[in-house]
Amino acid sequence: MPHIALPEGFPGIAGLMAYRPLTAKPLNELAQALLQSPNSLSPAERELIATYVSSQNDCFYCQTIHGAVAAHHLGGNQQLVDAVKQDFLATDLSDKMKALLAIAGKVQLGGRYVTAEDIEQARLADATDQEIHDTVLIAAAFCMYNRYVDGLATWAPQQMAIYQERAKNIAEKGYGQFPNQYSANKPSDEPK
Amino acid sequence: MPHIALPEGFPGIAGLMAYRPLTAKPLNELAQALLQSPNSLSPAERELIATYVSSQNDCFYCQTIHGAVAAHHLGGNQQLVDAVKQDFLATDLSDKMKALLAIAGKVQLGGRYVTAEDIEQARLADATDQEIHDTVLIAAAFCMYNRYVDGLATWAPQQMAIYQERAKNIAEKGYGQFPNQYSANKPSDEPK
Repeated sequence: MPHIALPEGFPGIAGLMAYRPLTAKPLNELAQALLQSPNSLSPAERELIATYVSSQNDCFYCQTIHGAVAAHHLGGNQQLVDAVKQDFLATDLSDKMKALLAIAGKVQLGGRYVTAEDIEQARLADATDQEIHDTVLIAAAFCMYNRYVDGLATWAPQQMAIYQERAKNIAEKGYGQFPNQYSANKPSDEPK
Repeated sequence: MPHIALPEGFPGIAGLMAYRPLTAKPLNELAQALLQSPNSLSPAERELIATYVSSQNDCFYCQTIHGAVAAHHLGGNQQLVDAVKQDFLATDLSDKMKALLAIAGKVQLGGRYVTAEDIEQARLADATDQEIHDTVLIAAAFCMYNRYVDGLATWAPQQMAIYQERAKNIAEKGYGQFPNQYSANKPSDEPK
């Protein structure tokens, strides 16, 4: 049960955004800028960074919804998403993505954990300054979203189909850009 | 030295915002909504929460600039700001503020650390749902800002006068609302 009274039937961050539109607006705009604006990192790559950090923070709702968005961008490849969460070094991702995920993992621990060697490793794999910047900010932002979602004990559905349907909407329409992003799920989805 | 090439002479987050205006906009709007919009928690109280979390995250730039903004709102009471960072339970703050700072400290560790008992303690001290919500989001947001500033190893001036001047501008004009917020300090301020 959430720590505060939220509109019923809205999973994860959606309930918080329905509760507090003033902060929902910049939170959605930040997600849109980081994850879907034009970028040399693909939307799938950026969603994988978000998913990995959310997994390291043990945030079930965020890792599941952003994993589903990543899988949507990857033509349904949920296996790669799961593999990144388990051991990204063992995947077929590029050396650049592995170096960026390593930086994201350091940011999850705390900003001061990122070393000059971590950055050098990313540069050797052809990461640009902007890609390094965006990776650090995506990782930092998910340390916020994860704490927001879990710090208020929001409700997370267990059915993967709910996440897949929301993920399709997010991937096709953007963060906060479609009216039903905040629509309630059927009451039967919510535990009593 | 910052991990990526930033415009010279801009301290802390200002250099990052000058480098990446796309993300600077929602980051400033979020800070404005959380710290300066109309609220039953005063700007000073909200800046104290931001300062405390930044201190727990060991982010020198953020704890110093937000501490200076809090002190400005408190008529120059930097001693209270320092006392909150050292041991907020020993200060003269209200029981409500102490309970909210305790929640913020849990959020800094991770969202799942916040317990029903922490929330109950805040309610017993007359905290409203919105005050609890905003405290959790301020604490979560500073876990982002702190990681952003330190994860890219930005430059932080040592002179308190620089922070006090910026703090006055922020308190009087708002986050991101004045052109010189991103203005460079004199080159002599920056270490060679």
